[in-house]
Amino acid sequence: MNQNYILSNEWSIIEEGFDKSRVKSSESLFSIGNGAMGQRANFEEDYTGDTFQGSYIAGVYYPDKTRVGWWKNGYPEYFAKVLNAPNWIGIHVKINDEVLDLASCKEVKNFRRELNMKEGWLLRTFEAVLQNGVEISVSAKRLLSLDIDEVGAIEYSIIPLSESVAIEFSPYLDAGITNEDSNWDDKFWEILDVTSTNNQAYIHSHTMKTEFHVCTFMESQLFLENEKINIPTTEFVSKTKALHTYKIEVSKDQKATLYKFAGYTVDRNHKKEELLLAAKSVLVKVLTLGFEELLKLQKKAWRKIWDMADITIEGDVQAQQGIRFNIFQLNQTYLGTDARLNIGPKGFTGEKYGGSTYWDTEAYCLPFYMATKDQNVAKSLLEYRYNHLEKAIENAEKLGFSNGAALYPMVTMNGEECHNEWEITFQEIHRNAAIAFAIFNYYRYTGDYSYIPEKGLEVLIGIARFWYQRATYSTDKNKYVILGVTGPNEYENNINNNWYTNYSAQWCINYTMENIKKIKNDFSVDYNRIMAKVSLTDNEISKWKRIADNMYFPYSQEHKVFLQQDGFLDKEQITVSELDKSQRPINQKWSWDRILRSPYIKQADVLQGFYFFEEDFTQRELEQHFDFYEPFTVHESSLSPCVHSIQAAKLNRMEQAYEFYLRTSRLDLDDYNKEVEEGLHITSMAGTWMSIVEGFGGMRVKNNTLSFAPKIPKEWQAFSFKVNFRNQILKVNISHDKTIFELGNGEELKLIVNEQEIMVTPNNLTAV
Amino acid sequence: MNQNYILSNEWSIIEEGFDKSRVKSSESLFSIGNGAMGQRANFEEDYTGDTFQGSYIAGVYYPDKTRVGWWKNGYPEYFAKVLNAPNWIGIHVKINDEVLDLASCKEVKNFRRELNMKEGWLLRTFEAVLQNGVEISVSAKRLLSLDIDEVGAIEYSIIPLSESVAIEFSPYLDAGITNEDSNWDDKFWEILDVTSTNNQAYIHSHTMKTEFHVCTFMESQLFLENEKINIPTTEFVSKTKALHTYKIEVSKDQKATLYKFAGYTVDRNHKKEELLLAAKSVLVKVLTLGFEELLKLQKKAWRKIWDMADITIEGDVQAQQGIRFNIFQLNQTYLGTDARLNIGPKGFTGEKYGGSTYWDTEAYCLPFYMATKDQNVAKSLLEYRYNHLEKAIENAEKLGFSNGAALYPMVTMNGEECHNEWEITFQEIHRNAAIAFAIFNYYRYTGDYSYIPEKGLEVLIGIARFWYQRATYSTDKNKYVILGVTGPNEYENNINNNWYTNYSAQWCINYTMENIKKIKNDFSVDYNRIMAKVSLTDNEISKWKRIADNMYFPYSQEHKVFLQQDGFLDKEQITVSELDKSQRPINQKWSWDRILRSPYIKQADVLQGFYFFEEDFTQRELEQHFDFYEPFTVHESSLSPCVHSIQAAKLNRMEQAYEFYLRTSRLDLDDYNKEVEEGLHITSMAGTWMSIVEGFGGMRVKNNTLSFAPKIPKEWQAFSFKVNFRNQILKVNISHDKTIFELGNGEELKLIVNEQEIMVTPNNLTAV
Repeated sequence: MNQNYILSNEWSIIEEGFDKSRVKSSESLFSIGNGAMGQRANFEEDYTGDTFQGSYIAGVYYPDKTRVGWWKNGYPEYFAKVLNAPNWIGIHVKINDEVLDLASCKEVKNFRRELNMKEGWLLRTFEAVLQNGVEISVSAKRLLSLDIDEVGAIEYSIIPLSESVAIEFSPYLDAGITNEDSNWDDKFWEILDVTSTNNQAYIHSHTMKTEFHVCTFMESQLFLENEKINIPTTEFVSKTKALHTYKIEVSKDQKATLYKFAGYTVDRNHKKEELLLAAKSVLVKVLTLGFEELLKLQKKAWRKIWDMADITIEGDVQAQQGIRFNIFQLNQTYLGTDARLNIGPKGFTGEKYGGSTYWDTEAYCLPFYMATKDQNVAKSLLEYRYNHLEKAIENAEKLGFSNGAALYPMVTMNGEECHNEWEITFQEIHRNAAIAFAIFNYYRYTGDYSYIPEKGLEVLIGIARFWYQRATYSTDKNKYVILGVTGPNEYENNINNNWYTNYSAQWCINYTMENIKKIKNDFSVDYNRIMAKVSLTDNEISKWKRIADNMYFPYSQEHKVFLQQDGFLDKEQITVSELDKSQRPINQKWSWDRILRSPYIKQADVLQGFYFFEEDFTQRELEQHFDFYEPFTVHESSLSPCVHSIQAAKLNRMEQAYEFYLRTSRLDLDDYNKEVEEGLHITSMAGTWMSIVEGFGGMRVKNNTLSFAPKIPKEWQAFSFKVNFRNQILKVNISHDKTIFELGNGEELKLIVNEQEIMVTPNNLTAV
Repeated sequence: MNQNYILSNEWSIIEEGFDKSRVKSSESLFSIGNGAMGQRANFEEDYTGDTFQGSYIAGVYYPDKTRVGWWKNGYPEYFAKVLNAPNWIGIHVKINDEVLDLASCKEVKNFRRELNMKEGWLLRTFEAVLQNGVEISVSAKRLLSLDIDEVGAIEYSIIPLSESVAIEFSPYLDAGITNEDSNWDDKFWEILDVTSTNNQAYIHSHTMKTEFHVCTFMESQLFLENEKINIPTTEFVSKTKALHTYKIEVSKDQKATLYKFAGYTVDRNHKKEELLLAAKSVLVKVLTLGFEELLKLQKKAWRKIWDMADITIEGDVQAQQGIRFNIFQLNQTYLGTDARLNIGPKGFTGEKYGGSTYWDTEAYCLPFYMATKDQNVAKSLLEYRYNHLEKAIENAEKLGFSNGAALYPMVTMNGEECHNEWEITFQEIHRNAAIAFAIFNYYRYTGDYSYIPEKGLEVLIGIARFWYQRATYSTDKNKYVILGVTGPNEYENNINNNWYTNYSAQWCINYTMENIKKIKNDFSVDYNRIMAKVSLTDNEISKWKRIADNMYFPYSQEHKVFLQQDGFLDKEQITVSELDKSQRPINQKWSWDRILRSPYIKQADVLQGFYFFEEDFTQRELEQHFDFYEPFTVHESSLSPCVHSIQAAKLNRMEQAYEFYLRTSRLDLDDYNKEVEEGLHITSMAGTWMSIVEGFGGMRVKNNTLSFAPKIPKEWQAFSFKVNFRNQILKVNISHDKTIFELGNGEELKLIVNEQEIMVTPNNLTAV
């Protein structure tokens, strides 16, 4: 770990003391969001120190020109950028005409931040001695409402400690913002209108090219102690900014509070000519409620989320804080209420990685949302890809595929590919399999088959066609091979016969054929509709089958393992533990060619296959492969330790499993990868959840039945989690001597615990 | 071929008729240069049509910021750009106050350009009817002096054909120029001073970052018929431009001529505070000589070059024109007078590829310069790399190598790498072998061993150390393998055991060891100096030897060929002739992944090895490999057909050899690759020379003896060439029934012709 200034606390993220060098890290760690928008924990008042300003609106992006050395055919024309949106949190503060700025204060005392995850608010308190000698106490509380997801609220209070002072609050909206990440200094936003009337201000702007229209709005109220003060406001507007100024004389020890209500209305939810009207109506609603009422609603909304999603860990506060931080951030990022949205790798906490959707969604996030939300949320995630099917077909066509073959993009906002390293964009094609696997996984977990005849089968057919066309017949091997790919381990590029890719390609074809047969038999109306649409013949299917039946899998007789790729054994077989620590992380220390010819694995690759297709292999095989590959794995992807944690738990290697768990759950809190300043690793947070539920809990679904193989790290006294399995809420509490199941609703539920069948009934504790 | 508007002519490149769509192509084809500077054939007068302006100064470049998707460790910080330099050819022309501009004339008649290769000048003549109805005849002749290589001269004549007119000539210098190729809209030039006095103008500017200082200068003279006219000149200077205006009344059918002398003095040759002085002194010299005298000197200088370098072909004007165009352009680009310069792939004809030096120099250009110039020229090319050895060691260190291992850059201006595609920069390491091979080749051809103890051995040791460190021991194969490379065939990336790379790595180590031994025995002073410098021990050498002795070479028993790389036989074995023509060229039609997994070969790869190391293989083996690889070769590199032509000739496949010859010699004239607008393929032009001398002439050096195996395409009556072999000038004339040798100097020369030894003596024709 690289930082550990976050105080241990079961429910809150807390920082004490002001340290300029930590400001950017804390801006990431204390980020807040409500699924529709989110923001880094930037200060409301001016701050001239080093900062990374960020406020983001779900689904609003910019197609920036791509940046490449040499253009290659098939590259996308743009790279989607997560866009910094107009700033609505800003409040210029002046005390006796001096600007409050923590970077230039004489002294900052008792600085403290708390991100209260239980209730969903951010509080910052401090005392400051200004250059003019005035000492004040400040408290700034902020939330993004889960109930009214277009608005946020700030309670900004100042108490003069040294003398009576004149305080000037100037809440503002500022659309003159920039991106940290910008290739060509393009303008991202065009401002159409800045207006201010009756204490309210609005900025109507739209993104360039993508034409997303956004109305940023605000209204503020001034209180002295608990009394609302109606003083005349100075309203000011410029081309990019609207600002209201409230001046008030405040006696020593009196409290002046500015309440600011602000946010965005966007044309995804409203007609663009009605954005201002919608904003007005939001302001009416929240002004009527007031800050305290909004906070109460917020607590209630989070209580509801936690009630289902919480994981408790007894006896290990760091582990407890870690898992809650992960669950909290996932829920801040995506709540599953809009099938047009998805889960960006950095959520609303930074700009890095652009785009919103990676295979992370299907491979890592889906299980979390399936188990902790209504099953419609998971279905929304599947539908997102169904809605992009045509674009995936176009994407494959750009690369020379035909006949409806679909290649889903590596990174996307709207279904189009927007990443352009050839070794990733063109070659990391295993992402296609994750999308098919998610369909299987959804059905396996929810038991809801309806999605497949309705929509999923078309996706599966496009994917099967892709694999069929992508395979090559090798006369030399008398088998079908898949050449020139990048597997999940991105530390190998343009390799041949990546076992994970070949195996999952075969699986995709077989699973598609199985579903075609089933739908032909059981859903003839859907079958006829789909076949008419995709023009699929038995002859084509038999060609797929030939490839699936004759797929080549590289295997080492000597090591008794499938090989990551054809050339893996030519590499120097030096394990990570034999590698000098000064060489780590290799992605920061080594040139790319050195990484590529090394045996080091960035994230689970063959083992990812053993995770997805666990049932196809014996425990002995898992052990052989884990023992072979784990020693070469450097876990330099945030997505890596969770899979290894689950498998270590399965192999009863609890110390290793626990170590991997800590690494995944506190990746950002302890800044393992030295990059938390850039934002949080949102998608890998779902992997943390998996390492508890699937790893320690050993939860699986087999034959429509939930099974468990509970294990507990020696550091813990007990841990518990809840899952929604087919609309039945099951709570599982695992301690060293027993596991207690509690069914919250429904009739009864058959479980398999350590291969023994048990029945649990509602509101009874069943101990095993 | 895509264009064939160039008229067939043995000594000139001629275009007739004005076609706006051909302007950019002709600007490339009619380029002129003198080794120190060069320029595209842009018009002197204004032209508002589509044009690509380019004037280039040898060794003057700009380190542009690199443009990449994702940064990788070891990438260079910049990409060197060939820089468009201030324009000195410009002459604004007004006829009765109307600007002469071929894009807007009412009519352009009898437009003709001639690039006279024999004498080294460019002539453009045309008649134009202006919008104002005036008809004029224009003749513009231009040369870049070989004798005074800082200057060029223009003779620009106008004859009014329809009536008497007022003509205004405004010759100018313009430093407000831009590059076509610019990543970040950076400013490349800073202008320090623009001055104009006494009919002379100077612009002192320097490049940003690299700080190359250049003085661009001009002086003009006006003549009416043959009489110099001394009329007052208007002198004008702005921040970027200096302009002199000469106005004259010219009667119908009288000729007004402006002579403009202009050029660059650069701080590679002068102190930067003396650039203006140097320019003045050049102007004195050329004004004293005058245009006609300068032209005479030019003819004489080119006569001297042609006397040695010319190749005659009887009975095939197209082939004759092709080879002379190639020889002419090579000499325009590089004359070998300055070891700090090298041969850029586009010479002075365009911006593409940036940088000046690729492995092209060693692999393709060296033989031409060795045979047609004094051997010091070839030695200069070797010294260029010796002077960059330290940078090559630093370059290897950036990639994690140590102990003096040297990796020469793929593209360079000053010894530093300036290309950044990882698959090229980090992986196309075979370039290192070409640099070692050139040392061997130089000694083989010139017999001058002195370079190796003096400088070459240090280069060889750096290269051997690189290969030693770059190889990996494969326990699986019990051999040393070289993983993760790109071979000469850039249509495969990150492959393992590229036969060409492995073979030449082995060769480099063996050749280095052989020379260490020889220098230890015969040059003990040098030996001790070098060993002290590089700290080489016998133990280290024995480790190199272990690798060279145990290098792995992929081989197919079935096909009896070495395999291009480990995975070659897994590729679909569909030959180029079976490929639909609509798919060609694949680099324009296919996405990169499709190219990578195809069997198609961009340029000779295994066959490049059979070219370099010809003596290691039998004719039968050559045939097997040629028959295996030729059918997969798409020749989408300009460097490809020449090697195949030489090998086809060796295999007595004269039709194929002739076809490859035409393709290489008229690549640009007939615009085979649809890109001549961007500039000419200078370095591959040396390959054309090789296809005649080494291909049809069958010239080799074995055991210090020149040997020939003459062959002649049926389309030709005879062809001849001269070579300088160890300071003896031998002329070879090959016809269908005999070959005639003529030795120009020296004592006598032993030759081997078709494996028979003969003796030739000076000034006697020896027919075989």
